[in-house]
Amino acid sequence: MPQIGIILGSDSDLPKIRQCPEILDKFGVSFEIIFSSAHRTPEQTKEWVESARSRGIKVIIAAAGGAAHLPGVCAAHTTLPIVGIPIESPVSGGLDSILSIIQMPSGIPVAAMPAGKAGGANSALFALSILSVSDSSIAEKLAAYREEMKTEIKKKNDLLNEKGYKEYIDSLGVKK
Amino acid sequence: MPQIGIILGSDSDLPKIRQCPEILDKFGVSFEIIFSSAHRTPEQTKEWVESARSRGIKVIIAAAGGAAHLPGVCAAHTTLPIVGIPIESPVSGGLDSILSIIQMPSGIPVAAMPAGKAGGANSALFALSILSVSDSSIAEKLAAYREEMKTEIKKKNDLLNEKGYKEYIDSLGVKK
Amino acid sequence: MPQIGIILGSDSDLPKIRQCPEILDKFGVSFEIIFSSAHRTPEQTKEWVESARSRGIKVIIAAAGGAAHLPGVCAAHTTLPIVGIPIESPVSGGLDSILSIIQMPSGIPVAAMPAGKAGGANSALFALSILSVSDSSIAEKLAAYREEMKTEIKKKNDLLNEKGYKEYIDSLGVKK
Amino acid sequence: MPQIGIILGSDSDLPKIRQCPEILDKFGVSFEIIFSSAHRTPEQTKEWVESARSRGIKVIIAAAGGAAHLPGVCAAHTTLPIVGIPIESPVSGGLDSILSIIQMPSGIPVAAMPAGKAGGANSALFALSILSVSDSSIAEKLAAYREEMKTEIKKKNDLLNEKGYKEYIDSLGVKK
Amino acid sequence: MPQIGIILGSDSDLPKIRQCPEILDKFGVSFEIIFSSAHRTPEQTKEWVESARSRGIKVIIAAAGGAAHLPGVCAAHTTLPIVGIPIESPVSGGLDSILSIIQMPSGIPVAAMPAGKAGGANSALFALSILSVSDSSIAEKLAAYREEMKTEIKKKNDLLNEKGYKEYIDSLGVKK
Amino acid sequence: MPQIGIILGSDSDLPKIRQCPEILDKFGVSFEIIFSSAHRTPEQTKEWVESARSRGIKVIIAAAGGAAHLPGVCAAHTTLPIVGIPIESPVSGGLDSILSIIQMPSGIPVAAMPAGKAGGANSALFALSILSVSDSSIAEKLAAYREEMKTEIKKKNDLLNEKGYKEYIDSLGVKK
Amino acid sequence: MPQIGIILGSDSDLPKIRQCPEILDKFGVSFEIIFSSAHRTPEQTKEWVESARSRGIKVIIAAAGGAAHLPGVCAAHTTLPIVGIPIESPVSGGLDSILSIIQMPSGIPVAAMPAGKAGGANSALFALSILSVSDSSIAEKLAAYREEMKTEIKKKNDLLNEKGYKEYIDSLGVKK
Amino acid sequence: MPQIGIILGSDSDLPKIRQCPEILDKFGVSFEIIFSSAHRTPEQTKEWVESARSRGIKVIIAAAGGAAHLPGVCAAHTTLPIVGIPIESPVSGGLDSILSIIQMPSGIPVAAMPAGKAGGANSALFALSILSVSDSSIAEKLAAYREEMKTEIKKKNDLLNEKGYKEYIDSLGVKK
Repeated sequence: MPQIGIILGSDSDLPKIRQCPEILDKFGVSFEIIFSSAHRTPEQTKEWVESARSRGIKVIIAAAGGAAHLPGVCAAHTTLPIVGIPIESPVSGGLDSILSIIQMPSGIPVAAMPAGKAGGANSALFALSILSVSDSSIAEKLAAYREEMKTEIKKKNDLLNEKGYKEYIDSLGVKK
Repeated sequence: MPQIGIILGSDSDLPKIRQCPEILDKFGVSFEIIFSSAHRTPEQTKEWVESARSRGIKVIIAAAGGAAHLPGVCAAHTTLPIVGIPIESPVSGGLDSILSIIQMPSGIPVAAMPAGKAGGANSALFALSILSVSDSSIAEKLAAYREEMKTEIKKKNDLLNEKGYKEYIDSLGVKK
Repeated sequence: MPQIGIILGSDSDLPKIRQCPEILDKFGVSFEIIFSSAHRTPEQTKEWVESARSRGIKVIIAAAGGAAHLPGVCAAHTTLPIVGIPIESPVSGGLDSILSIIQMPSGIPVAAMPAGKAGGANSALFALSILSVSDSSIAEKLAAYREEMKTEIKKKNDLLNEKGYKEYIDSLGVKK
Repeated sequence: MPQIGIILGSDSDLPKIRQCPEILDKFGVSFEIIFSSAHRTPEQTKEWVESARSRGIKVIIAAAGGAAHLPGVCAAHTTLPIVGIPIESPVSGGLDSILSIIQMPSGIPVAAMPAGKAGGANSALFALSILSVSDSSIAEKLAAYREEMKTEIKKKNDLLNEKGYKEYIDSLGVKK
Repeated sequence: MPQIGIILGSDSDLPKIRQCPEILDKFGVSFEIIFSSAHRTPEQTKEWVESARSRGIKVIIAAAGGAAHLPGVCAAHTTLPIVGIPIESPVSGGLDSILSIIQMPSGIPVAAMPAGKAGGANSALFALSILSVSDSSIAEKLAAYREEMKTEIKKKNDLLNEKGYKEYIDSLGVKK
Repeated sequence: MPQIGIILGSDSDLPKIRQCPEILDKFGVSFEIIFSSAHRTPEQTKEWVESARSRGIKVIIAAAGGAAHLPGVCAAHTTLPIVGIPIESPVSGGLDSILSIIQMPSGIPVAAMPAGKAGGANSALFALSILSVSDSSIAEKLAAYREEMKTEIKKKNDLLNEKGYKEYIDSLGVKK
Repeated sequence: MPQIGIILGSDSDLPKIRQCPEILDKFGVSFEIIFSSAHRTPEQTKEWVESARSRGIKVIIAAAGGAAHLPGVCAAHTTLPIVGIPIESPVSGGLDSILSIIQMPSGIPVAAMPAGKAGGANSALFALSILSVSDSSIAEKLAAYREEMKTEIKKKNDLLNEKGYKEYIDSLGVKK
Repeated sequence: MPQIGIILGSDSDLPKIRQCPEILDKFGVSFEIIFSSAHRTPEQTKEWVESARSRGIKVIIAAAGGAAHLPGVCAAHTTLPIVGIPIESPVSGGLDSILSIIQMPSGIPVAAMPAGKAGGANSALFALSILSVSDSSIAEKLAAYREEMKTEIKKKNDLLNEKGYKEYIDSLGVKK
């Protein structure tokens, strides 16, 4: 039975937040994904959200871009925690998506994640942090995940010290 | 039977768009007003919008601020023309409201009006222009309304020519 | 006799709003297209707009970018509904176009559509919603169009459930 | 033993988010409040955050303005859910605070709430939604709170229908 | 015979640019002022602009706010230099006015001045700099005006040196 | 003897404003171009600007990007008309350049042109409009230039009417 | 002999950065203040800056608003460290000032401080941190200043714990 | 013993600021580079910063993007001068990075450099200007560096005068 529900306003958003399901998979936490628009399929969205708590869903992750109403519309139909991911867009790189998600009115909260690639990863990690409140095994896995990140940075520092900055830059394969 | 439906996300928005019902009154076009939030009363919003066409409503005017989802949520439940008014807010004077209303996804249109006081007046005038497509008496009244605006500007020019700019400024009672 | 007039500030805007005439074609609603600038051909713009109502035009769709004055200038010459499409631009991805179109002064309304590709589609759909007020066959076609969108989303969900998210992403052919 | 920790970058932020502790009080959920800056008292911040989980804290709410680093700095020291409130500021009404809180890097999530007064209320409600995942009594109270909001809107609609829009506006005591 | 034409989209803009006519008066350069909107009185605007060169007008100064089309619309009807003043507005303090005036399309130039009080003064000074190209007496007066500004700053420095910064601040009568 | 001086903060800006010298060439108006930075070569900038009027220069066109101080620094050293071109930049597509050029303080005017390609063309055309104040042959050429633009648009409309919109779009060679 | 030079584009900026000289006074570091505009008194600015190093000045603090060129213009005339303070303005609360100061071109550095009141304090503290590099007594005083800030926060926490949040808010005298 | 410490939030930022170590190398000033995140390795960051002064470090250069907390977090742990480089990002080309670095609270200063490539160069040059306060040999090298920049511009002007603008543009190899 899935613990996390992921809802996307458009299937083209899926590759942009792919780190979200990948991290949940890595943590062994089950999830379901649905494409459902706040505007094009409002009934499907409502039904999926309204029944989420009774289906055992604990956190809903909703991604949308532009006038990104989906996270807010989800929040209107449940008191479960809603995590919103603003998809990058042409207007200031996603300022429309960010403001449409973060500026929710008093009474109906949505947790806004960063726009861009970090939104996918952080929505999963934030949902896991919610689960960790009552599941110490997830808390431990999150702590371990942080250690992994530290180790990765340590390795990069070792390489930098070994190579020097010029060779390190060359090794990244970025053009000047 | 009202021809125009006005829906407001918060009753505090009513004074900010008061020119909307005032202009409709002036044109003798009947309307109804409801307070209904996209997030706090989604069912009421849905029912009011879904039944609008069959109740004889021809245009829906929806005002909201911040993550201003209300016009978009209305548009999800009807194919009637939806006119959205962004209420001014602290973030860049309403840029959040503007972007949340204008940047609708492909397939579900909303007609965005100006933020601020002009939004109230123009939403009414735009709704009237829609009615004027099949009602020539409204078209005539709209033309007359434009003439009134011209006359008002003419009077101001006459006064300016009479007084000169210094006295005119003083007559406006604006502090330096 | 065309029911919709489409006016473009530059011929280079035509491909950017191509969904506008395509959708009108799909709905079997006749339209005319003209290239006419608010600034470079003001007389042509004025004449085309002023004569629109008497030529049977019911809605004018105007697209422009940057200091996008065209929709507003059209609105100055008619009381027909004007639908404005902000063309994307380098400044914040079209914030200049958006603000130049949406922030019309009190008295002269313009209905602002989203910047970007959605602007083309939504301007046509919004014009059709206006026609639907007095033409129930268009109302029915709009309802059917919405059903098509729902069916398309349903198919994508079926595919997602069949393939799983990883394979679905691969099938989209988007690079990591 | 407090379940929620509230940390404020400046004591002047406390009145701006007062709805946060007020709502927690209303729900009967215990909390603690501390003034601690990411920059002026980094050690105190670190210690308070690092020990939070072992002290029984389940959610941390962090408010800050300008270069609002506090929520992110808290997130660096715990895997508990961090809820960030951007305090309004002069730069675009708080765009600096919003972006400094929402745009966290991949790996360290923060849940961004709206800038302004809604941030106080929604941070409490979001924290409660997190608790509701494993505490059904809070889930019930949240559902009841939503019903209260609906009732309040219903009362306002009754008053509007009774008074009409002009008298209603007068009753709000807002100047034209 | 006036050399400068000043056109204002609204009479409420006149006090905001009052330094414009005041500086022209100080320089003894004749001017005329008209209230005329790009949208509400397009014919009056067109006629006044089109006949400007033949009436002896050498520079047109046009002020407008929001979707500030007036300077651009003037530029469409003459090849005289058009100087545009963006009136401050609620959206980011006039970003809409600035972008609507500055972002003119290729082929039809408008000279954009600063938003706010400086716009009034600088539009006059810029118009005078244009006249100075073929009128050396104005060039001399402009040079003298600059010397006055230097003298004024010198006096302030003398006062600062005499009083010290604390007393100087007190003398400005600004609250802490 | 050149009548127009063009000053560029960086030689990499030259291709971006190439329409400026090209249009001056087309109008047969002589000009000189110099690379000179407000910050890296302040003395050269000052000398070139200070001596401009006595060398017969009538208008100075200054292009710069980012913290685009060059037009303002030029304006500090002469009372000749200064025309500033904001070079596009990564920050919001040039919002930094636009604001650094347009928001000049009271007393020292700069005429801000559009960011992007239009800035090159319009700076030349605006300089020519200044010359046209006392040179009727340039006024005539400017009028002819506008006629050319109209003819070009007319040709495009003829082609559109001949081909239809689909074929026209294909002829532009833009990918969908 | 003053070690710090403070230069202000306008005397009206002095009260806005008053914490700058106040903190320098508190640290017993001598300074001089001058009003000098980048645009209105360019020669005075140049002379004051060019002679600064030989007069014993070690850091220059420059404050300006709008098209805030002053810090950059100072940087053009010296290789001393320049610290720029963006004065708040109507455009997005000072975004024009921020971008005009921070976005300096490669080769001529300016250290940008926060807009608003913090700019005054931090410019002094940053200048002191520069002096501290070769003056350990200032380093000690800076460390002591930080301890003072910590003590002040500790006192506020004591008061909060004593009073509770409601009484604390009341004691701040902020209206709801 | 290194005099400058460079700290990067991510190794992918290194190529973007490569001019920073390159310029320090050119000036013969020793430095060290470390990858350390404000959020992922807060302890490492704290230790490296806290020990910097005693290790002989005189200036710390910190680069980060998005919610760019790193420079501020460094400033929390030392009274050494901190120079912050905002890495360009998708949101308005780095407006999030700029505001997160520049808008530091009163008491803890950070010197913000330009976003983009100039940030790398200017952070090094600014650090060198700090060293130059007590090291006249560096002051001389900085003066020489400025002369080099002037010579380079002179050469470009010579080439422009020789070739003419058309051939010069062609020689830059930029496409139209």
